[in-house]
Amino acid sequence: MITVDFNSDLGESFGNYTIGDDAMVLPMITSANVACGFHAGDPDVMAKTVTLAQQNQVAVGAHPGYPDLAGFGRRKMAMSHQEVADMVTYQVAALQGFLPNHHLHHVKPHGALYNAAAKDFELALAICEGIKRVDPSVPLYGLANSELIRAGQRSGLPVRSEVFADRAYQADGSLVPRSQMGAVLTDPQQVAQRALTMVTTGTVTAITGETVKIVVDTICVHGDNAAARQLVTTMRAVFDDAGINIHA
Amino acid sequence: MITVDFNSDLGESFGNYTIGDDAMVLPMITSANVACGFHAGDPDVMAKTVTLAQQNQVAVGAHPGYPDLAGFGRRKMAMSHQEVADMVTYQVAALQGFLPNHHLHHVKPHGALYNAAAKDFELALAICEGIKRVDPSVPLYGLANSELIRAGQRSGLPVRSEVFADRAYQADGSLVPRSQMGAVLTDPQQVAQRALTMVTTGTVTAITGETVKIVVDTICVHGDNAAARQLVTTMRAVFDDAGINIHA
Amino acid sequence: MITVDFNSDLGESFGNYTIGDDAMVLPMITSANVACGFHAGDPDVMAKTVTLAQQNQVAVGAHPGYPDLAGFGRRKMAMSHQEVADMVTYQVAALQGFLPNHHLHHVKPHGALYNAAAKDFELALAICEGIKRVDPSVPLYGLANSELIRAGQRSGLPVRSEVFADRAYQADGSLVPRSQMGAVLTDPQQVAQRALTMVTTGTVTAITGETVKIVVDTICVHGDNAAARQLVTTMRAVFDDAGINIHA
Amino acid sequence: MITVDFNSDLGESFGNYTIGDDAMVLPMITSANVACGFHAGDPDVMAKTVTLAQQNQVAVGAHPGYPDLAGFGRRKMAMSHQEVADMVTYQVAALQGFLPNHHLHHVKPHGALYNAAAKDFELALAICEGIKRVDPSVPLYGLANSELIRAGQRSGLPVRSEVFADRAYQADGSLVPRSQMGAVLTDPQQVAQRALTMVTTGTVTAITGETVKIVVDTICVHGDNAAARQLVTTMRAVFDDAGINIHA
Repeated sequence: MITVDFNSDLGESFGNYTIGDDAMVLPMITSANVACGFHAGDPDVMAKTVTLAQQNQVAVGAHPGYPDLAGFGRRKMAMSHQEVADMVTYQVAALQGFLPNHHLHHVKPHGALYNAAAKDFELALAICEGIKRVDPSVPLYGLANSELIRAGQRSGLPVRSEVFADRAYQADGSLVPRSQMGAVLTDPQQVAQRALTMVTTGTVTAITGETVKIVVDTICVHGDNAAARQLVTTMRAVFDDAGINIHA
Repeated sequence: MITVDFNSDLGESFGNYTIGDDAMVLPMITSANVACGFHAGDPDVMAKTVTLAQQNQVAVGAHPGYPDLAGFGRRKMAMSHQEVADMVTYQVAALQGFLPNHHLHHVKPHGALYNAAAKDFELALAICEGIKRVDPSVPLYGLANSELIRAGQRSGLPVRSEVFADRAYQADGSLVPRSQMGAVLTDPQQVAQRALTMVTTGTVTAITGETVKIVVDTICVHGDNAAARQLVTTMRAVFDDAGINIHA
Repeated sequence: MITVDFNSDLGESFGNYTIGDDAMVLPMITSANVACGFHAGDPDVMAKTVTLAQQNQVAVGAHPGYPDLAGFGRRKMAMSHQEVADMVTYQVAALQGFLPNHHLHHVKPHGALYNAAAKDFELALAICEGIKRVDPSVPLYGLANSELIRAGQRSGLPVRSEVFADRAYQADGSLVPRSQMGAVLTDPQQVAQRALTMVTTGTVTAITGETVKIVVDTICVHGDNAAARQLVTTMRAVFDDAGINIHA
Repeated sequence: MITVDFNSDLGESFGNYTIGDDAMVLPMITSANVACGFHAGDPDVMAKTVTLAQQNQVAVGAHPGYPDLAGFGRRKMAMSHQEVADMVTYQVAALQGFLPNHHLHHVKPHGALYNAAAKDFELALAICEGIKRVDPSVPLYGLANSELIRAGQRSGLPVRSEVFADRAYQADGSLVPRSQMGAVLTDPQQVAQRALTMVTTGTVTAITGETVKIVVDTICVHGDNAAARQLVTTMRAVFDDAGINIHA
């Protein structure tokens, strides 16, 4: 039986500021990427999010990002590899402290850090070094076919290949940039069928027509608007019909 | 054989900013309180400080403080007990991530947090809750005879009673405030003899003449100026002569 | 003709985080207290808020607070008077930079800083010193009958006495703490009539029955929920009927 | 009589952290670039630095940088042009608030922001927009022959062309990157003569031998080590002998 994980970013509130509706999203997903206080989240939000995730039997992973709350971790920063490794250790370990058994399910870098590491092997290695210092057995979530996945494998970390069901892919297996026409798919049924094809065949059709190999361990989903939630619901229904097991 | 620990605050640099001379202080002490990035320190400084401490066979503890870099953690903040517990978990766990075996030697709150907890049992309990979430077996350093020690005992944490050899004590076992005449002693020989008396008799003479019970597990020392280092050197010599074992 | 100002806190969003609905509140008020980036707000939010306020012919004031985004400026911090004066200068001047003619309408301290200054004359003086360095002619909004008003007068700043129409008052003219029964009034008609009485008679009936003098230059209103907006709408209607001019 | 300005970065301390020895540097320079609290400096440091500069008859300029204290503004951040304009307004206005007459002598961007703007016209324009909002008559210090100078001219700001006497230049008038051999000159006499030639002839000899035009309004000097101070002293002596007026 094929198993696939649905992951989503959670715990992005900060102090008096709320982002997202974690309680609504949790029943739809199987693993949560919890912000660690640098690009979003704070110690109180982390504590509450971990508790809430566990009440929903959702696996908890760390979601480290650039130290840039004002930019929500979406602005690339020219940090040295040592700085990246150290800030990843710091954030991952901090989140681990809130888990009752200190057992993290996974680590997924956030935003600009995730995107930069998808294309920069050395940066991706620095992230892996930062993770390994905390726990060399914790799985790394990375973009399918990216340098982050390759760096994880080189580092000896377990890797989980992540796909974006509603995004178009290029012939080399990378995502079509959002700025390009056709980069984002919006029809729930189409997206769900496409995700099912990825999962069952291990391939995706590129925007230019080629068949591209893709490993689907986990699918990134969002809960920040009605359309996004409709998409997840449709995918769950299609996967259930097809006998795909949705599990972290 | 009597054993006593010499502890000092380390890893207080931040980014391009340097405070202290950790390499000079480390050979003089047996345990280090390493700043955790809230009142001082950053992930890179933490990584380097942990490595440096271990090269010097100095035990590494976490030194959580208020989230106030501009105030160096010396300004009391009206945080809720939940906020205190969560920020202590965050900081202690973050530091633990940098230790090769993830084994923290102790936790000592910093600055205004330490001082406030010495007098506020509920606040001190919140600190203990924050520590226990990370590791309920890690010893807590607290001011001798303070609410922090009592809260640690109530919480089931191992406690280590800390004294300040160069500070005068009041009849109730608390420190004479720095603002008061005679609060700080400066003669190295006098301070060293006084420390030896505390260690060997378990008592100290209050500024008002009374003999006060005091447990001496660890002595706080500083390395930020020549006089402070002279004081440590003198204490070490006097303790060695008296057959006191200086060890974490 | 009697004139009274309706003021509200605006520009409290930060980066990717939104608080409040400034576009909805602006038509209901005559002056805005704009956050300055320490307890809330950021340079982009400040720029947008100033523009939006001016499009609505709402007067713009600075709303400096403690440097504590995580606590939204609601946690008292033990800052020195010098630190308070300097951080007030910094924040007030920063906001002034966004105003086309660099003309600030007023300054109102935020949250814990406002509350602390209401009771601490020396702290309030420090705030005034910070304001005067930027512009000694800019009016200070302070709680009616408070130390902040007295310090403004002593400093030579123009002062504007602020009342909270939906809060009960004590016989000494101070607010009944929120923790006490009856501290907050919720019936819009009752609150509006009470506000009208304050404005026309210069007095308020204390929770203990006494008639207390109160100067009403400006009334603090909120727009963060439907009940708050209902209250403002009712006050506006009652004031209009009574021929009170609502103007900054 | 030819006049040239010696400028230096000052006010880079933060809270309990000290960088530089401003009191020693001030007598050697004629204008100070004062950090504005984002990459370095804080409100207290700004207040003290402004006072100290004025006691030394040194002109005070604002030195805005990226919002990155941990990286000291030396790490490029992918901020939007709007974000850059707004953060420059914020920082420049904040510093202006500390000046007794609110008259800024100049604005010089810091570190990675300065370097990026030297090569990116649109980014440089955003900086200029941010400055103009505060004061369209305040001179902009920019690297000689750079996009920052061109953007300042396009924006209508007065510009001051800055040279680095101890750096080698390329044939296109840009600096030889520090990573390259021969990029930095260290002999004080050679540097001073070279600076004198730049000032008197308006040209510099490129590392590849060409004669390159260069406008010298201001020379960047440092005071953070003995060699740097020796260099300034030598330049001052050589300029005095040549009858060059050193003045802001």
